[in-house]
Amino acid sequence: MAHSSTQDTVSSESVQATAGANIPPADSQARVSAFMKRIQDSICQRLEELDSEHQFLEDSWERPEGGGGRSRVVKQGNLLEQGGVNFSEIWGDRLPPSILAQRPEAAGHRFYATGTSMVLHPRNPYIPTVHLNYRYFEAGPVWWFGGGIDLTPYYPFEEDAAHFHRTLKQTCDAHHSDYYPTFKKWCDEYFYLKHRQETRGVGGIFFDYQDGRGQLYRGPAEEGPAAQYSNQIGELPTRSWEDIFAFVQDCGDAFLPSYVPIIERRRDTEYGDRQRDFQLYRRGRYVEFNLVYDRGTIFGLQTNGRTESILMSLPPLVRWEYCFEPEPDTHESKLYDVFLKPQEWADWIESSA
Amino acid sequence: MAHSSTQDTVSSESVQATAGANIPPADSQARVSAFMKRIQDSICQRLEELDSEHQFLEDSWERPEGGGGRSRVVKQGNLLEQGGVNFSEIWGDRLPPSILAQRPEAAGHRFYATGTSMVLHPRNPYIPTVHLNYRYFEAGPVWWFGGGIDLTPYYPFEEDAAHFHRTLKQTCDAHHSDYYPTFKKWCDEYFYLKHRQETRGVGGIFFDYQDGRGQLYRGPAEEGPAAQYSNQIGELPTRSWEDIFAFVQDCGDAFLPSYVPIIERRRDTEYGDRQRDFQLYRRGRYVEFNLVYDRGTIFGLQTNGRTESILMSLPPLVRWEYCFEPEPDTHESKLYDVFLKPQEWADWIESSA
Repeated sequence: MAHSSTQDTVSSESVQATAGANIPPADSQARVSAFMKRIQDSICQRLEELDSEHQFLEDSWERPEGGGGRSRVVKQGNLLEQGGVNFSEIWGDRLPPSILAQRPEAAGHRFYATGTSMVLHPRNPYIPTVHLNYRYFEAGPVWWFGGGIDLTPYYPFEEDAAHFHRTLKQTCDAHHSDYYPTFKKWCDEYFYLKHRQETRGVGGIFFDYQDGRGQLYRGPAEEGPAAQYSNQIGELPTRSWEDIFAFVQDCGDAFLPSYVPIIERRRDTEYGDRQRDFQLYRRGRYVEFNLVYDRGTIFGLQTNGRTESILMSLPPLVRWEYCFEPEPDTHESKLYDVFLKPQEWADWIESSA
Repeated sequence: MAHSSTQDTVSSESVQATAGANIPPADSQARVSAFMKRIQDSICQRLEELDSEHQFLEDSWERPEGGGGRSRVVKQGNLLEQGGVNFSEIWGDRLPPSILAQRPEAAGHRFYATGTSMVLHPRNPYIPTVHLNYRYFEAGPVWWFGGGIDLTPYYPFEEDAAHFHRTLKQTCDAHHSDYYPTFKKWCDEYFYLKHRQETRGVGGIFFDYQDGRGQLYRGPAEEGPAAQYSNQIGELPTRSWEDIFAFVQDCGDAFLPSYVPIIERRRDTEYGDRQRDFQLYRRGRYVEFNLVYDRGTIFGLQTNGRTESILMSLPPLVRWEYCFEPEPDTHESKLYDVFLKPQEWADWIESSA
């Protein structure tokens, strides 16, 4: 989208005034949406190779208010019992109030948003569920990137959690040494089931409202530990739009190397009814998180989003059981005792296991 | 609880000033909680007779802030794949903000609340899921009853929906001719999945904040059709505490006659994988409603309620399927086309079927 009209020029100056020298380039939207489509393509392609038989089916959809997307789903595959990878690019008159509360400068302006989101529910209970979402917004004088990735094991292994986190840490560290520790904690905090007092899984990284201004942490004030992180992290030099986009691209490209080795290590592990039952039971937590806490899901459902694409994140088969607790000293109890609490997985040392 | 202290007398005068002559009797809490326990008992006993083999297991629990309850669950029964019937009686310093917003007179006062809630998930897909909840609150100068009952069929039959609604209408009509039409609409409005544009099932009755004052409908102002109902219903003469408690007792006692005949009519209907798969898929809607919309569930989860009792309403096994739609002109499609829209089931005439 070229910035040629008078109004666009005014808008860019406004960006400059608000965010220092950080204005998006003229082709920002085209470049980010091309990236979002590229990671959707590369992820689906690699997962199809790994399945060797089942393919993603694509639905393209349009949003009456502006924009649309392409949803890709694989159902009942060899590897994935269900997997969904969505790309969307939408625009409209105004951002929803929940976002405007965080970015009041966007009020009264049209917005543009693009992103890719993914949830994979593997068939084998030894392979963790994984979620990824990266997104980009522009609205009047402001723009920002957000997103992240997190891993939810059923039958967990320290080396898998460590591999996943180390891959992310390496990606983050190449850009700024504060990124990984900040975004890792943010992830632990966001993907937390308060009513269960459990993390959703072993976490990963999560960030929002990254616009190059000094502070990394932009969580809502009412979320307790937010202040703590902002205090821990010093003011950074202003980062450019290019800096942050480069970081987000590297995050997107880090997905396959962070996850595929775990698939390959676990996909041939045999399992029986006990493991299957436990997997279905634990999938209930995924549903509880997505429907009770996840801002994106709730927002989408309440604002006339495409329901089937939003709820593609829900597992294909789920169990609830009143007062279930794992037997002590089992692989299942280890999930609760060790893996559903925040841990410094990147620092894990094999010999200590 | 005897009203003997000076403070209690003041409190009763305050009730009188606010709600006309409508003050609860001195033994209000004991009488209502005894009723709530009695319906828990009678429901569980009859369901056990109908199952003939499986019994409810009871967990008694205490709430650190005051009060407690007894949760009764049957898992993997012959009749019920899962059923939960909860009684609770709690008290504390203050009501939560969501309730105070509706009843500002309760601010700054201690509260007392008792209720019974129930969700039954039958095994046979031809028997509908059913939900019941009745509750009573006192807080400073105010008191009120709330609750209702609603039916969620998978493979629906007009005669079942009609029987259910007629039983409720008869119960309501014995107390006031405005009750059934008002509370039936309120139920259709409350148990509605906006993101699916579906009612949860064929409805039933729902009411809240019944304190004997003139208007029946006390829905939150921001819910669209609320105003409509308040306008339709004229001001009633003030009803006494005894009037409303008598009505709520009759509602509780109407459960077995409204539902047991449906069990008896459908329990021997044979079914196969197709019916089972559809039942599991439709149970997903129950989960979506309870976790996204149900005020009680969300409030409980966010305020340190007993998670296992709150989530007893979730089905034991659930399926989601991307973009599933029933085939046209099938029993499944009839559910969507006829039963998931508000209908005047009490007026249904058999010969028209």
